[in-house]
Amino acid sequence: MDPRFEHRITEEQADEWLALCRRFFQLLADRKKRQFNRRVSIADLLSERHDNAAAYGFGEGTTMYDNVLVLGDVIVGRNTWIGPGCILDGSGGGLEIGDWCSISAGVQIYTHHTVNRSISLGAMPVDYAPTKIGHGVYIGPNTVVQMGVSLGDKSVIGAISLVNRDIPPGAKAFGSPARLYVK
Amino acid sequence: MDPRFEHRITEEQADEWLALCRRFFQLLADRKKRQFNRRVSIADLLSERHDNAAAYGFGEGTTMYDNVLVLGDVIVGRNTWIGPGCILDGSGGGLEIGDWCSISAGVQIYTHHTVNRSISLGAMPVDYAPTKIGHGVYIGPNTVVQMGVSLGDKSVIGAISLVNRDIPPGAKAFGSPARLYVK
Amino acid sequence: MDPRFEHRITEEQADEWLALCRRFFQLLADRKKRQFNRRVSIADLLSERHDNAAAYGFGEGTTMYDNVLVLGDVIVGRNTWIGPGCILDGSGGGLEIGDWCSISAGVQIYTHHTVNRSISLGAMPVDYAPTKIGHGVYIGPNTVVQMGVSLGDKSVIGAISLVNRDIPPGAKAFGSPARLYVK
Repeated sequence: MDPRFEHRITEEQADEWLALCRRFFQLLADRKKRQFNRRVSIADLLSERHDNAAAYGFGEGTTMYDNVLVLGDVIVGRNTWIGPGCILDGSGGGLEIGDWCSISAGVQIYTHHTVNRSISLGAMPVDYAPTKIGHGVYIGPNTVVQMGVSLGDKSVIGAISLVNRDIPPGAKAFGSPARLYVK
Repeated sequence: MDPRFEHRITEEQADEWLALCRRFFQLLADRKKRQFNRRVSIADLLSERHDNAAAYGFGEGTTMYDNVLVLGDVIVGRNTWIGPGCILDGSGGGLEIGDWCSISAGVQIYTHHTVNRSISLGAMPVDYAPTKIGHGVYIGPNTVVQMGVSLGDKSVIGAISLVNRDIPPGAKAFGSPARLYVK
Repeated sequence: MDPRFEHRITEEQADEWLALCRRFFQLLADRKKRQFNRRVSIADLLSERHDNAAAYGFGEGTTMYDNVLVLGDVIVGRNTWIGPGCILDGSGGGLEIGDWCSISAGVQIYTHHTVNRSISLGAMPVDYAPTKIGHGVYIGPNTVVQMGVSLGDKSVIGAISLVNRDIPPGAKAFGSPARLYVK
């Protein structure tokens, strides 16, 4: 810690700050409830979803909750909804996501994995491959998209699925691993 | 941004504030460890789970972590535990949850979906249906309950399940899609 | 609320504080982008992953995101990566995790469950059993490890799996429930 900033905080000061924080957050929560009939995390009270998306260069109309982790080179188009708890990993050669997608809450999209690094106790490197999501793609809640996969335009991936191969445009797929749905 | 509040923040000020924030959070974290032998997120240090639940009108004894997203009209009874990372979506006609439920971490309960809106590139509307969870229901971690489903009293849903049809009272179900468990 | 701290906050004050918070967080986010080409949550801007791990006594080189919930007696070795949204539950007799593990984002590892407490409407107690994760173990995203399980050294558990039995050293397993993978 920088020695210029060796502030001491007493227990009583902490109580006072905590009381002040809570009043501030409660006021913001009351506004959110009145305007949108919802409750969000403290961090989402302190930020705006449009700003979060714009700050990383994502397209107009795209929104992203505060607790989304974005790694490396990630391009996202317009009017895409990115839910809370998502991971958009572009660390392994880049991740592209199109317009009008639903990246549901808890979805994780990867361009790397650490299987070999872990089981070699760090001796082997991380594996990488780029990943691409088209336009108008729906990805259901808590689904994981592995590195190196392409999801075609207007494809639909069910909730809690593990996608480990390419999905053609317009197709529906679900399960672990995700298989194409045929009526 | 409101032009009245065009404050400049220098890099050095930011360092000082950061040091102060960390000291404050560390003091709160030390209290939490002493009292409850656990660590929670910064936001959960700054809020109380009972207060979070009460602020949205949930019943006595019900607790909810800070990063739970609650949308629209959601009614929750007494003594229900709502874990971190959950989504309780009452935006589509209302969501009711009873007493003594376990809504495990990462559970998402919906009354809407955006499949048709996404694959029509915004031309079609969002779909809606109300959802109901009875009393004494256990929902395992990372499970997703689709819109329009009813879970009967004292039913048990396994972890990582996708529930897309009604579950009768007292039944056990798991899987994607969830199927009834018969011994 | 402590009556000493009955501060009133006006709507205008709240606007000013909000503007100031956003400037501060934006400055920290700009630093993070420059240094690491990524965006993280506000809470992860305000904390360091090494510090989070060290504060709970975890081994050198281990990192942990802010929104990881750690309950009770949890021991973690060195050079282990703990992703965002994880739960490490040592409340039921203790949880041990070795060196060089990948605890992927959204993984939940338990030493208790509340099935019987929920369906008895609180009449029955919580169930407990200790859990152990070896060295060099990879656990994929959104996977849940139930109480009482042991994962052997260098085992690999696929994404979105439910592990409810012991996995031998060096084995690969995936699915719900997780089954051993045989080529």
